[in-house]
Amino acid sequence: MTYCVGLLLNEGMVLLSDTRTNAGLDNIATYRKMFTFEKPGERVIVIMTAGSLSVTQTTIARLREAIDDKDSTPDQSIMLAPTMLKVAEIIGNALASVRLDIESKMEASKVSTSASMIVAGQRRGGGMRMFLVYPEGNFIEATEDTPFLQIGEHKYGKPILDRVARMDMSLDEARKAMLLSMDSTLRSNLSVGMPLDLVIIHKDDCQISERRRIEKGDPDFSRMSEMWSEALRDGFTKIQI
Amino acid sequence: MTYCVGLLLNEGMVLLSDTRTNAGLDNIATYRKMFTFEKPGERVIVIMTAGSLSVTQTTIARLREAIDDKDSTPDQSIMLAPTMLKVAEIIGNALASVRLDIESKMEASKVSTSASMIVAGQRRGGGMRMFLVYPEGNFIEATEDTPFLQIGEHKYGKPILDRVARMDMSLDEARKAMLLSMDSTLRSNLSVGMPLDLVIIHKDDCQISERRRIEKGDPDFSRMSEMWSEALRDGFTKIQI
Repeated sequence: MTYCVGLLLNEGMVLLSDTRTNAGLDNIATYRKMFTFEKPGERVIVIMTAGSLSVTQTTIARLREAIDDKDSTPDQSIMLAPTMLKVAEIIGNALASVRLDIESKMEASKVSTSASMIVAGQRRGGGMRMFLVYPEGNFIEATEDTPFLQIGEHKYGKPILDRVARMDMSLDEARKAMLLSMDSTLRSNLSVGMPLDLVIIHKDDCQISERRRIEKGDPDFSRMSEMWSEALRDGFTKIQI
Repeated sequence: MTYCVGLLLNEGMVLLSDTRTNAGLDNIATYRKMFTFEKPGERVIVIMTAGSLSVTQTTIARLREAIDDKDSTPDQSIMLAPTMLKVAEIIGNALASVRLDIESKMEASKVSTSASMIVAGQRRGGGMRMFLVYPEGNFIEATEDTPFLQIGEHKYGKPILDRVARMDMSLDEARKAMLLSMDSTLRSNLSVGMPLDLVIIHKDDCQISERRRIEKGDPDFSRMSEMWSEALRDGFTKIQI
């Protein structure tokens, strides 16, 4: 499985994904699930993927092909699309069509070809937008009421976000909340694993402002994880019922 | 949906269930999901249920019928079975057979008839045992390594248990851990709802030692929930990354 989470803030956007892929418990590998596309200052798009690896890789490959094709129209290339809404549509259509292709090949084997994506970005002159694209190609958007979107193993890491995630958080606070949400997921579910990919985009920069790969044993992440464990244990001990 | 959790300790057992049942989001009701059977001092059995209400109700009704039937053998009545293992077997067989019955009626409609149960108890002279019974009737048992069992919406409340649940906890600590695990689930998932049913069984009592229904707005539960929120927010604020 996978855990990817994106948070839309007034100040920018924070995106975090794990990298573990498994086809059965005895076939585990590390694959990047976060893909960035940018023309700095003009547009930045981040896609995070969950679900069937063959579906998501093929979808990303088709999107790249359309970007590289000089004859692509704004209806085909996410780097030419006039709005982030159009970007989400192109990605949704690509995902749905790849999924149907692969599904028809897999009919007999009952293997799941489901996949979903988080798409976040900004075009110069437009607002920051973040979408969750469903396997069928339709999508929903992050809003003030629910500023975070999750795909994959989302349940373990939801309680902390339900409590603290707000659009008016600082980017630093948001990064912390998302890393803690990931930490809970890593602890409770083997199919989600390090390293992590983290991207931060400041509002109106229209480019990746910060990009980090957090490796297993990363001292900052380990320290944060320990402090959080300690805070939880302390809180737990203090409560009298 | 449902959230039920049981924790097996050296000192005894703690069992907690919610009561929300829904057939679609517009058809929500309160049903007891915890059933207790006791002959105080001789045996105590607690069953918690998740999944299709028609399956779990019919299963419990059949188990009750067998208990009330004077001609029942120790192979049929959970109140006569010679061991807790046999109790789990009787319950597993009843669940599997009811599920198959109902499944055959539902074939056309694709409605899920899946259901699972947690069975906990002790017979005089035997040890405390706790089982998770799967829809097919097979089961697994709580052990020192993993002293808690969960059914229903288990993911939201798992991180706290993964961190603190241990067999050598006191019953009070265990109750607190389970109520906090339930609190996280209630906050993040609408299909799990108050009131809650809590049962505590002291080792070798062979009867229910404490039984409580925790209603919505219960002052102790609300206070605990607030203290936990505060502890999480404080911990969150203190962590520097």
